[in-house]
Amino acid sequence: MDFELRILGSSSATPSANRHHTAQVLTIGNQYHLIDCGEGTQMQLMLYKIKHQRICNIYISHLHGDHYFGLAGLLSTMHLQGRHLPLHLFGPPGLSEILSLQFKYSGTNLCFQLIFHELDTTCYKKIFEDKQITVHTLPMEHRVPCCGFLFREKQKPRSLLKEKLPPFLTPPQLVRLKWGEDVLDEQGNILVQHKEVTTGPKRSRSYAYCSDSRYKPDLLPYLKNVDLLYHEATFTHDLQERATFTFHSTARQAAEMACAAQVRQLLIGHFSVRYKDLTPLLAEAQALFPKTDLAMEGNIFCVRD
Amino acid sequence: MDFELRILGSSSATPSANRHHTAQVLTIGNQYHLIDCGEGTQMQLMLYKIKHQRICNIYISHLHGDHYFGLAGLLSTMHLQGRHLPLHLFGPPGLSEILSLQFKYSGTNLCFQLIFHELDTTCYKKIFEDKQITVHTLPMEHRVPCCGFLFREKQKPRSLLKEKLPPFLTPPQLVRLKWGEDVLDEQGNILVQHKEVTTGPKRSRSYAYCSDSRYKPDLLPYLKNVDLLYHEATFTHDLQERATFTFHSTARQAAEMACAAQVRQLLIGHFSVRYKDLTPLLAEAQALFPKTDLAMEGNIFCVRD
Repeated sequence: MDFELRILGSSSATPSANRHHTAQVLTIGNQYHLIDCGEGTQMQLMLYKIKHQRICNIYISHLHGDHYFGLAGLLSTMHLQGRHLPLHLFGPPGLSEILSLQFKYSGTNLCFQLIFHELDTTCYKKIFEDKQITVHTLPMEHRVPCCGFLFREKQKPRSLLKEKLPPFLTPPQLVRLKWGEDVLDEQGNILVQHKEVTTGPKRSRSYAYCSDSRYKPDLLPYLKNVDLLYHEATFTHDLQERATFTFHSTARQAAEMACAAQVRQLLIGHFSVRYKDLTPLLAEAQALFPKTDLAMEGNIFCVRD
Repeated sequence: MDFELRILGSSSATPSANRHHTAQVLTIGNQYHLIDCGEGTQMQLMLYKIKHQRICNIYISHLHGDHYFGLAGLLSTMHLQGRHLPLHLFGPPGLSEILSLQFKYSGTNLCFQLIFHELDTTCYKKIFEDKQITVHTLPMEHRVPCCGFLFREKQKPRSLLKEKLPPFLTPPQLVRLKWGEDVLDEQGNILVQHKEVTTGPKRSRSYAYCSDSRYKPDLLPYLKNVDLLYHEATFTHDLQERATFTFHSTARQAAEMACAAQVRQLLIGHFSVRYKDLTPLLAEAQALFPKTDLAMEGNIFCVRD
């Protein structure tokens, strides 16, 4: 099953001529999760041939325009193109009010169901669950209510080794073996050990999106061992004071979080427009955490199981 | 003095991968007038190296997203980049309420003065005047309150022919000659005829922007003899019924307006996404009104005096 992240934009508040505002698509299986939706997101989706009709959930981290000014346009286009599938929208208080006002004045009555989930951005809390994944909020520390999102695959079943399976096993017993239980006889003695007739399970993959925030080490317990961590890195560390003052982070701070949480890979983004060349940000993070990449728009980051 | 129009986008409600939503910059002298502001306008301004700090007035024709979803982002960027000049914003009822709500939730307190002028979209009315131009609304017929805009240079002074000027003329007499008055003696006899010592005046140029509308021939008196007419042409004429039903126009209808108003040049735009190739729209309009061009983004149309 695919578990991959496509970057659509990673500029901070002011866009540059060749860097769009924040938006990302996380593909899990055949479902698209859109994370933030800066201005121009619908054009970026077209550019990268990502069908917006396959987006099931949209997550908005906070109500600074560079994270959501593309949302009303995307929803309008979904409507004009006759979407019929329901869409779940997760966002902070105020988002629903803003959209309702815009649709009121445009006379838009959406032709699909838009299910709005108002987020409590102050805590770690499960906001979505299906057969494959859970999504939790991650409380950020920013100038307005803001949260990140932790996507985690649920535990996967073990794989049966057909050549080692005794022929007498019933379907319910096979299911128990796949979930790591042994098969017992009537007296409670082990008849078949799950470890002997199964392998795995495959790893449950995870992606943590840390949106705009000051350096916030109390997030570390939630980020422990995640496969892919996106952390904003608006500034290089020489501008640490400015980062703190504006409730943003530096590339070094992002790398410190990645080190302490022992993640597999770090992505940095939300680059200030002052950096035409992003090499200093990358170098600063890689000095502490070598497995760092820039969240360059168009790039895809696959998480393997 | 420059009088030129730059097209930033001309797609209808749904953008295509290479056509942005409606936005245009009319340059008159050293001032920029931004007409509509679809999603992505701030990126288009950057692409074409148009300094947004030089925009003095913004005109929003109506509250369909493809005409204003780039506005909040552009204003935010002006704010972040420290604009200090006041900005005049002309738009229909509701626009101010929407922006206020967005700025409330983003905690934005604009660092420049945004002067909102609520438009009556139902009539022809002067909404702006300075030394050089006047701007009037043009009532459109659309699904929501909508108006176009007529930009017209004021009458210009005649040019003095220095070699023909008698030496005894005083500065006030020279001014009168420039404005087409003769110089008289104390008995009221003509001393100097303005036509003999001046030329001109240069033509007063005009641009009419007809935003989204059904075919509306009662606009013709306002459009008479304008230099440049932009008229929406969402569809080709085989889709006339659809045009009428959705309150839009066809390319042929745009050309009929241009013919009847005897304008110098016609621009058509607001193309439906169904037309990947715009040739049929252009051919249809040119069959009636040869001096028609497509409002292709990036193109500049100069009006000469």
